[in-house]
Amino acid sequence: MSRISPLQKARAAYQPKLPAALAAGARVKVLEGEPTAAVADVEAIRNLFKTTFGSPVLTFEAASCGCGELPAINAGVILSGGQAPGGHNVIAGVFDGLKSLNPANRLFGFLKGPDGLVKGEAVELTADIVDAYRNTGGFDMIGSGRTKLETPEQFECARANCAKLGITALVIIGGDDSNTNACVLAEYFKSNQAGIQVIGCPKTIDGDLKNEWIEASFGFDTACRVYSELIGNLCRDANSAKKYWHFVKLMGRSASHIALECALQTQPNYAVISEEVAARKMTLGAIVDEIAQVVAARAAAGKNFGIVLIPEGLIEFIPEIKVLIAELNELLAVNAAQIEALDVEGKTAFAAANLSSASAAVFSSLPVGIQNQLCRDRDPHGNVQVSLIETEKMLAAMVGERLAAWKAAGRYKGKFATQTHFFGYEGRCAAPSNYDADYCYSLGYTAAALIGAGRTGYMASVRNTIEPAAQWIAGGIPITMMMNMERRHGADKPVIRKALVELDGAPFRFFDTQRAGWAIETDYVYPGPIQYFGPSEVCDLTTMTLKLEKQGRL
Amino acid sequence: MSRISPLQKARAAYQPKLPAALAAGARVKVLEGEPTAAVADVEAIRNLFKTTFGSPVLTFEAASCGCGELPAINAGVILSGGQAPGGHNVIAGVFDGLKSLNPANRLFGFLKGPDGLVKGEAVELTADIVDAYRNTGGFDMIGSGRTKLETPEQFECARANCAKLGITALVIIGGDDSNTNACVLAEYFKSNQAGIQVIGCPKTIDGDLKNEWIEASFGFDTACRVYSELIGNLCRDANSAKKYWHFVKLMGRSASHIALECALQTQPNYAVISEEVAARKMTLGAIVDEIAQVVAARAAAGKNFGIVLIPEGLIEFIPEIKVLIAELNELLAVNAAQIEALDVEGKTAFAAANLSSASAAVFSSLPVGIQNQLCRDRDPHGNVQVSLIETEKMLAAMVGERLAAWKAAGRYKGKFATQTHFFGYEGRCAAPSNYDADYCYSLGYTAAALIGAGRTGYMASVRNTIEPAAQWIAGGIPITMMMNMERRHGADKPVIRKALVELDGAPFRFFDTQRAGWAIETDYVYPGPIQYFGPSEVCDLTTMTLKLEKQGRL
Repeated sequence: MSRISPLQKARAAYQPKLPAALAAGARVKVLEGEPTAAVADVEAIRNLFKTTFGSPVLTFEAASCGCGELPAINAGVILSGGQAPGGHNVIAGVFDGLKSLNPANRLFGFLKGPDGLVKGEAVELTADIVDAYRNTGGFDMIGSGRTKLETPEQFECARANCAKLGITALVIIGGDDSNTNACVLAEYFKSNQAGIQVIGCPKTIDGDLKNEWIEASFGFDTACRVYSELIGNLCRDANSAKKYWHFVKLMGRSASHIALECALQTQPNYAVISEEVAARKMTLGAIVDEIAQVVAARAAAGKNFGIVLIPEGLIEFIPEIKVLIAELNELLAVNAAQIEALDVEGKTAFAAANLSSASAAVFSSLPVGIQNQLCRDRDPHGNVQVSLIETEKMLAAMVGERLAAWKAAGRYKGKFATQTHFFGYEGRCAAPSNYDADYCYSLGYTAAALIGAGRTGYMASVRNTIEPAAQWIAGGIPITMMMNMERRHGADKPVIRKALVELDGAPFRFFDTQRAGWAIETDYVYPGPIQYFGPSEVCDLTTMTLKLEKQGRL
Repeated sequence: MSRISPLQKARAAYQPKLPAALAAGARVKVLEGEPTAAVADVEAIRNLFKTTFGSPVLTFEAASCGCGELPAINAGVILSGGQAPGGHNVIAGVFDGLKSLNPANRLFGFLKGPDGLVKGEAVELTADIVDAYRNTGGFDMIGSGRTKLETPEQFECARANCAKLGITALVIIGGDDSNTNACVLAEYFKSNQAGIQVIGCPKTIDGDLKNEWIEASFGFDTACRVYSELIGNLCRDANSAKKYWHFVKLMGRSASHIALECALQTQPNYAVISEEVAARKMTLGAIVDEIAQVVAARAAAGKNFGIVLIPEGLIEFIPEIKVLIAELNELLAVNAAQIEALDVEGKTAFAAANLSSASAAVFSSLPVGIQNQLCRDRDPHGNVQVSLIETEKMLAAMVGERLAAWKAAGRYKGKFATQTHFFGYEGRCAAPSNYDADYCYSLGYTAAALIGAGRTGYMASVRNTIEPAAQWIAGGIPITMMMNMERRHGADKPVIRKALVELDGAPFRFFDTQRAGWAIETDYVYPGPIQYFGPSEVCDLTTMTLKLEKQGRL
């Protein structure tokens, strides 16, 4: 028996809170709303999802009478994509919810993500297994994977593998792409009368699977709390030592929700929001300039220290860099044979000589280390590996150069020493906060209730989560309702629309009213580590993003 | 009024626990032991500390009767060196202890470390100020600094600045060097009848200020818990994604206590302990080989993931690298004028061409990026900046090369993808754990008791801390007792002997019995974040290092 930590031991006993509708079990009264459409491209979506399109939004109420047991079924569950805190609690919720429908119900976990479904690798999740993982972080109970369920061949394998295990319902826990594919699979099964329901659950620390009906993707709260704990500690350190500017890159490729939430929690001196960079068409030079101005203003007040937050995906939001990367991808792909033999300096020189003049100028403005990274690190498709680019080091170096120029011109008198950090992997597998533990368990339980209600092509939805859990609203949202068509790899595809940071949304607007003050003052807030046992005002928190979105204030 | 986080608000009310001897106030009964000597070089130490040498170890007991108030005094407090969690609680303990001796006692905080004493920059610490910082991390209440108090000129300034404020007692909170200097200052004041007592408090997250009488330096517990939280999260992530080896560098220059404690807490697949590297005279190649063997063994068992811990100071413990760095320092200093104009490649080439043949071979075995770092980044004295060398990236790259060679030779079939991390600044300013909050407050209170008892040249000592606080033993240790003479910058100096990891000590021996299992199995432990409000077995922990040292078992 492996050793477990004292906290794990104590935390295992936590019983996640449920919405009132689910308190007596997953056999619920289902209220149906009006038929639904799609966020855009309604006809295209309707054509693609002939049997699942148009289903109503479902809201649960506690069943008013004992309804007896449903026939026993076998169900399967899949974790898809990157880890997010609370995944195990979704599974525990599905498990407990199914058992409440009929104690003879059985749950199988497909191993290593969608691949397990395609290859037929599964393990039955018994009470012993589920109990060992309640309220823990990670996806190690059954593993995860990034295989995309897209082809009819995969779907047929899935059907056959479900048939072998007698599985008639699948819960797919994933991000926007995985839920889109869950819906495609639901449509396939339904239109082919496979007799297998498919339910999705919204997961991603990035927070970009979010809309009117899905108010949060699970894991976002916990990940942001871990990052904010660390950023708060760095703020204290900066304010104590008074000698470093810390440049902190935060995970989150396609949206800056994490950076914004962490900024709201810790009040750093500067936070880059990628969506603003794109909207304002800011050049890299303009970003560097804004940061350097904050540094100079603080230096003038005797404060040669500070904190800057940078979203991981920034570089793809800067118009000129986006063009540069596209050109580099093209250039290095077309000339792959010729440049393969070159060392990194050779590749860099080749790139510099063959880019368009605009991109060549941008390229040469970058620090040499970054130029090399852009040319050296390619993914298996030959593309620049954006996630490997050390944006935090790049910005720190470029701000340093800018300040040196200002110093030479007599515009700036200060000291500028930097430390850089990247917080990402540290937060993806943290044990879930109470919010995520409760939310995930409720999502899983809701998924079981949707199975019990015989639905397919739905995403489990739990709303009103800024209120105590008893007041949370559980139900199901037709996945087609959240879709539109987007251009992907040269073809139009149905996808769930990604939620970017809205510049006219309450979270960004609040940030915008505060940031000038945070830049110059030292107004750091120190959130500290996630607490599980303390007073409710310390343990049962929601994100500031959600509070601002729902209440318009903190 | 700045916003504070919910946790800060709740935590402000925490009343740190005290040893029974101090429960009724800092006016205690003082038990004197026998006269003391020094750990080595007794005569030399006696000669340097003519008036403070030989004092007895002091142990406190609760005073058996009301003894009335002592005359009112003014005292000063100084934070010296790098931040460590709990510094504010030491100050709160000094403050409360002084007030218990006489409510009219006043405490001044010298600003920005020892510099504040020399320059006479101080602020009176009122109850309002102290209350705002109770149980918080950081040193931002009065700041810290790295100025060394060493010269008679500084001591005279200190005397004059104390006189201006009517200060007759100083508490210096710092690491081994700062406490050594506190003792030199105590000796100076005493031999010159300045009438100013000096008391030291043992601080450093590195854990290397530790001996028979000082069982822990404060901050070590909290910092290790923050790092272990993050390492545990990475372990979960590695075990969930099953595709990365994470190389984690941990703060701690001269000793590997942090790496060892974090290894005991999280059970990674490999942990480098610098003291072992030095004792076994391991080459860099041998370290790379050991890690690569663990990677290969796991790969053979289908596990292409893992966690490696690396102490920040490693590179200086590898004999051949130590020689290389010494040669580089010499080479680049002697030829400073000639190489200043060269770019980094030029400097690297110059170094390669002019090193001894042994060092040139070592140098060329290093990844190019590290070669450049060694030649580019110099401190103000022209020395290699060891702390800037990205040892974690270097080892990851070299292990990768070794595995590639083994793969080519058919010895290894696996995938090896890495992520690197450096955890340091994140932990120095975390809010103190209960252990550090209690320990620090007790240390400060003990310092006040030593002032009340009229002592000087003592370090506050709180022992038996694996037991509940009421059973802790408070008292004072003559600083001279912990000293010996060491060669520093070409001269013999009295210093407190640094505590390195002892290879025959219980913590390392326990690690040694376990590590072969941890390497191959996946036995990770997930400590999770520091808890403040839960059950005592979750909140009131001591380090595993201390438990093993005191009990010989966990």
